[in-house]
Amino acid sequence: MSTIYEREHDEFRDAVRQFVTRRLAPAQKESIENRRFARELWREAGRQGFLGLDVPEAYGGGAAEDFRFNAVLTQELSALSAAAASSFSIHYDVVAPYLVGLTTDDQRARWLPAFCSGAVVTAIGMTEPSGGSDLAALRTTAARTDSGWLLNGSKTFITNGSSADLVVVAARTGPGAGSKGISLFLVDASSPGFRRGRKLDKVGQPESDTAELFFDDLELPSACLLGEVGGGFGYMMDRLPQERLSNAIGNLAHARPVLTDTIAYARERTAFGKPIGSFQNTKFLLAELATKVDVTQSFVDECIVDHVAGRLDGVKAAKAKWWTAQVQNELLDACVQVFGGYGYMVEYRVAKAWTDARVTKIWAGSNEIMKEIIGRGLGL
Amino acid sequence: MSTIYEREHDEFRDAVRQFVTRRLAPAQKESIENRRFARELWREAGRQGFLGLDVPEAYGGGAAEDFRFNAVLTQELSALSAAAASSFSIHYDVVAPYLVGLTTDDQRARWLPAFCSGAVVTAIGMTEPSGGSDLAALRTTAARTDSGWLLNGSKTFITNGSSADLVVVAARTGPGAGSKGISLFLVDASSPGFRRGRKLDKVGQPESDTAELFFDDLELPSACLLGEVGGGFGYMMDRLPQERLSNAIGNLAHARPVLTDTIAYARERTAFGKPIGSFQNTKFLLAELATKVDVTQSFVDECIVDHVAGRLDGVKAAKAKWWTAQVQNELLDACVQVFGGYGYMVEYRVAKAWTDARVTKIWAGSNEIMKEIIGRGLGL
Amino acid sequence: MSTIYEREHDEFRDAVRQFVTRRLAPAQKESIENRRFARELWREAGRQGFLGLDVPEAYGGGAAEDFRFNAVLTQELSALSAAAASSFSIHYDVVAPYLVGLTTDDQRARWLPAFCSGAVVTAIGMTEPSGGSDLAALRTTAARTDSGWLLNGSKTFITNGSSADLVVVAARTGPGAGSKGISLFLVDASSPGFRRGRKLDKVGQPESDTAELFFDDLELPSACLLGEVGGGFGYMMDRLPQERLSNAIGNLAHARPVLTDTIAYARERTAFGKPIGSFQNTKFLLAELATKVDVTQSFVDECIVDHVAGRLDGVKAAKAKWWTAQVQNELLDACVQVFGGYGYMVEYRVAKAWTDARVTKIWAGSNEIMKEIIGRGLGL
Amino acid sequence: MSTIYEREHDEFRDAVRQFVTRRLAPAQKESIENRRFARELWREAGRQGFLGLDVPEAYGGGAAEDFRFNAVLTQELSALSAAAASSFSIHYDVVAPYLVGLTTDDQRARWLPAFCSGAVVTAIGMTEPSGGSDLAALRTTAARTDSGWLLNGSKTFITNGSSADLVVVAARTGPGAGSKGISLFLVDASSPGFRRGRKLDKVGQPESDTAELFFDDLELPSACLLGEVGGGFGYMMDRLPQERLSNAIGNLAHARPVLTDTIAYARERTAFGKPIGSFQNTKFLLAELATKVDVTQSFVDECIVDHVAGRLDGVKAAKAKWWTAQVQNELLDACVQVFGGYGYMVEYRVAKAWTDARVTKIWAGSNEIMKEIIGRGLGL
Repeated sequence: MSTIYEREHDEFRDAVRQFVTRRLAPAQKESIENRRFARELWREAGRQGFLGLDVPEAYGGGAAEDFRFNAVLTQELSALSAAAASSFSIHYDVVAPYLVGLTTDDQRARWLPAFCSGAVVTAIGMTEPSGGSDLAALRTTAARTDSGWLLNGSKTFITNGSSADLVVVAARTGPGAGSKGISLFLVDASSPGFRRGRKLDKVGQPESDTAELFFDDLELPSACLLGEVGGGFGYMMDRLPQERLSNAIGNLAHARPVLTDTIAYARERTAFGKPIGSFQNTKFLLAELATKVDVTQSFVDECIVDHVAGRLDGVKAAKAKWWTAQVQNELLDACVQVFGGYGYMVEYRVAKAWTDARVTKIWAGSNEIMKEIIGRGLGL
Repeated sequence: MSTIYEREHDEFRDAVRQFVTRRLAPAQKESIENRRFARELWREAGRQGFLGLDVPEAYGGGAAEDFRFNAVLTQELSALSAAAASSFSIHYDVVAPYLVGLTTDDQRARWLPAFCSGAVVTAIGMTEPSGGSDLAALRTTAARTDSGWLLNGSKTFITNGSSADLVVVAARTGPGAGSKGISLFLVDASSPGFRRGRKLDKVGQPESDTAELFFDDLELPSACLLGEVGGGFGYMMDRLPQERLSNAIGNLAHARPVLTDTIAYARERTAFGKPIGSFQNTKFLLAELATKVDVTQSFVDECIVDHVAGRLDGVKAAKAKWWTAQVQNELLDACVQVFGGYGYMVEYRVAKAWTDARVTKIWAGSNEIMKEIIGRGLGL
Repeated sequence: MSTIYEREHDEFRDAVRQFVTRRLAPAQKESIENRRFARELWREAGRQGFLGLDVPEAYGGGAAEDFRFNAVLTQELSALSAAAASSFSIHYDVVAPYLVGLTTDDQRARWLPAFCSGAVVTAIGMTEPSGGSDLAALRTTAARTDSGWLLNGSKTFITNGSSADLVVVAARTGPGAGSKGISLFLVDASSPGFRRGRKLDKVGQPESDTAELFFDDLELPSACLLGEVGGGFGYMMDRLPQERLSNAIGNLAHARPVLTDTIAYARERTAFGKPIGSFQNTKFLLAELATKVDVTQSFVDECIVDHVAGRLDGVKAAKAKWWTAQVQNELLDACVQVFGGYGYMVEYRVAKAWTDARVTKIWAGSNEIMKEIIGRGLGL
Repeated sequence: MSTIYEREHDEFRDAVRQFVTRRLAPAQKESIENRRFARELWREAGRQGFLGLDVPEAYGGGAAEDFRFNAVLTQELSALSAAAASSFSIHYDVVAPYLVGLTTDDQRARWLPAFCSGAVVTAIGMTEPSGGSDLAALRTTAARTDSGWLLNGSKTFITNGSSADLVVVAARTGPGAGSKGISLFLVDASSPGFRRGRKLDKVGQPESDTAELFFDDLELPSACLLGEVGGGFGYMMDRLPQERLSNAIGNLAHARPVLTDTIAYARERTAFGKPIGSFQNTKFLLAELATKVDVTQSFVDECIVDHVAGRLDGVKAAKAKWWTAQVQNELLDACVQVFGGYGYMVEYRVAKAWTDARVTKIWAGSNEIMKEIIGRGLGL
């Protein structure tokens, strides 16, 4: 129904769908059991060109620089599961802009080819146990040494945390300097002093690995610094709108097919001698959800167009993120109800989707943080 | 913020704003007291070319055939008051398509010039006391006579009812034939047998006149038939999407400036030593409202683009109508709360807007009817 | 349905109902036009013993000291209109405890007999234009003079403001002393320097007079001081729970009969060939409202019992106030929708009730203030 | 805070708490892994006298006939986990009234002693795969034979399904007779033809075993009939209010301690240098939840008092059931949000509670069915 895509995006969508259908979906049970996507799936995604959409061709990327491809990829992954979208998009939507935009030639040469091929899986280490949303307060420190930096601290709720080979880590390099004292580092997970905590046992999204990371006197050579010393907070602020738009796209694309399923179910399932969708309460409920999905789609599409044009700001991205998370969660809760007892059985897509979605109101800046950002944008 | 308008629409918007600022706004107190817009205001709107946007030039219209002009007009009227938009848009958005699309040359020659100049004010007579939303059940009858038809019955909640010179009336011409037995007539308000009830005392929108109409053995010459006998239901169904889109545009345009006012008030008004907008609950509330307005604007804009392209269907228009009515009412109720006691004083714009808006969830097909339409569109 | 009343309360309820039916209801049109309750109605209420329920018998009161009588009175007045309850209950529920509990023998002798008979109508002057909810910040001052105090300042949103003969006024006697510097005074409205502003034009509750009050070098003899100097804030805090419980009782009693009306209407009114109450969406809506009313009644009853036993605290009263205001407003908005277009006509009870009720989320401590109180009670 | 309990109930509460603390809580991990409560826990509950509260003393029961004991038991089990309450209360609140009220002396002698001791665990088989809420449409059949009945069919979503030794099964004995053709049977799970499906993998409540049951030509001796032939529907209708009140009690008692936890967390956890509970949005949210819990508690207490007095009707029980389920789910979702990322980790009580609670809007008559019942009670 969206009108923002062109033929090349439709072709790309077909390719992603095939990947989802032929590779990801058959592996889903295994992914759930292992609580991670197998490395072979990453490599296949790399072969398909999905991992380095915006990476220069010289490093094996697609150099597309058209976020609509990213959007299509996220939508099709989300249609399978929220975790497929979150695990892969952390790599191609969230980490990529750091590796492409802030790196030296040497850093690019070292990491980007493997980033594009799936040989290297990435994560981003912002959140800390002591405070999720308050980035300016982070406690992980990188202290200057003769040859570089000494990293100490920990991160939590890190998507791809136990799989990642490379983690972009935010650390305090200027103690007491607030948001000005934060720098970013490329941390090789094979470094001594890098330790992974257990995979966290989450309410949903079992396919994605989420872990704590610990840095104990981890020695970082100078070449690991990403961008300028003290520039970290600004780099993150600059890139958060894309991450939040990516979340918004996934939120909606994760919810929409469940609504389609639910409408179909409501047409078929009977109670008291009639299809349950013919009961007015159910009919109106589904009409409301269909409205919300379409209204929201317009806005998300507009944000995509804005981002392609380079004019998506942080406030608008914040609006897209919290609103889609809210709509998604309301929608899935309502759909569970339509399915009745079956909606509470894990094997039903709606049940899994409901548990998978709950975190989207929390992660990558909670709904409350989004409202704070929007409120500030209103001058309040 | 909308991107769907071009320079000519912006110029048109300036012209409408001048009309609103120089003519409508200064007359508002008088309009409220008289519970109607003075005929001179209609004539001035006619001189400005606002009344016959889509009427052929031969009859004094603008022949624009670009609904974005209608949208601009409705938005700017709504920014003054919901009643200004509803009274005038019944004429230029709702009645116009009947007069342009279904009329004979003679009917056009008789009515359209005066329609465009404001010499004739129009209304549409669908709703009846016995059932607002159930058009197929209407009881007003037009019985065949030798020279035409004999009209009997009544209509209620008719916007412009006590001002109108011409009313498009739906009547049953085929008793027992359900929706197939309804025809439309051009009813001259000066006809014997045409009687207006009292102006209804509404909760809000005091400037607009809303009345009951009674038809007692009103003789209609054959030339008063609009379109085909029995075609009335279809004609109405065809034109309801435009009416509902018009409502949707007005709903949002009526709410948005009140939100702007409220944000300004929240920045200035202090309590407990701080601006009330700096209290987190208020800040988040306004952030939520700003999000809803922007999300909704995207969808309404998309509907306008669809309608200009001739592809707006009844289901999408129904989504736009109920959703905007809902958002508008929630927003205004929340804004009243921000203003505290002042929000309950009629002289405050927010107070008047709150009472004015309530009817938008009811008229022109209630939110419930919209959900029924959408539900049917889902195959439920 | 409530089980907390005994036979004497039921008899008292009958008496109040007669007063409402025979005196208040027939005068309602006149009360609305005059925007006040005629003094003769106050006197009749006095003759019936309704005004001094808790005043000692020596001064003409009922000495009941059983708040269930107050509750019955408020419920039956609310069933007629919110304004009837608000105007009278300011006198018997809000002002009475100041006059009974804080007065000297001379003050009692001067005011209480006329208070009980309706010869004197009272109001309470807390709220000021610069800040409704922030009592500690009030700006009206009472400066010491040789013979008493000199009162300067203004109050707004004062119920009974233009009728009142006696106003309990909170004023700052200790500049800079915050909540400790506030004292209360018995202000005779016939005093030089006492000036009433215009009756405020409210969205609803047209029967009640609400006005601004101005004090310009108003000389208060020492005998006008109520209680101790500097004790005002504490006195108000002590009495607010009763005022808020009174609001809560009225909120629910105002909403409940409208729900009853609406259910009856939904059984009778047909659309598409069926009673509208048989449409599942309407049926479920009314079922939800009936549930909310009953659930809320239990809590209000519990609060009444607590207050009779002397154990109602400010937090619980705050819960009762905001919750009932919220439920009332949601309920009335939903009932308007069931009535369709008729719900927007002032002559329908539901329409008037909807506009009357809106202020209950704002006055006497807004819902936001109530949540602040509750939040503090939670240690937050 | 409730005032409806007396000293003996408080003592009983202490006993239940000890059982929960010393036996159930230490076994919780094992219960989750095994997806059932170990039989030894049932036996201990039996030894404590918890299983046969209302069973005559002659059969080993407590003969309390005071539902407040049941309420206390459900509350304390719910405070540990929803599944503890649901598994055990199916036995003591739901099945007990069938075994006590409808049985012959022989049936009592055979089953009640073991029912009270925990030697026999019970379940109730109403719901079928083809329709959860439509009891009158059930398809399981019991066909007359010379010596009794031949049972065929299946049941689903049966709590205690894989543990139960005795199942009260509703079956159709009069084909085509609608609700009049349903009878109840005592089905011994060791009977040939009794087959258990797999334990269902639910979104929450992992400790409780929920299973499908299949009856394949299961021969039931005449002595297995419970009550009269054709009386089943009426028996179930008579007992549903108690089941629904039991649900309501559990819903609230499950939510309340999580709110207490969340308030404590909000006082301790800091962000941006302040306790998160001091942020107004969080403070107001918790104030709203505290209000809802208290308001709801009043109503549930009133229902308990009504039930003890023998006057709880089906409509009021339906109100209590859906309302508490709704409040519980809203509350837990909000509390998850306060905990942020930790609220999505299974090890946090709030996370488990959120998933455990979702089914309460569905089971034992969905919220929609409750509203249907209430709507009918309103004459709609």
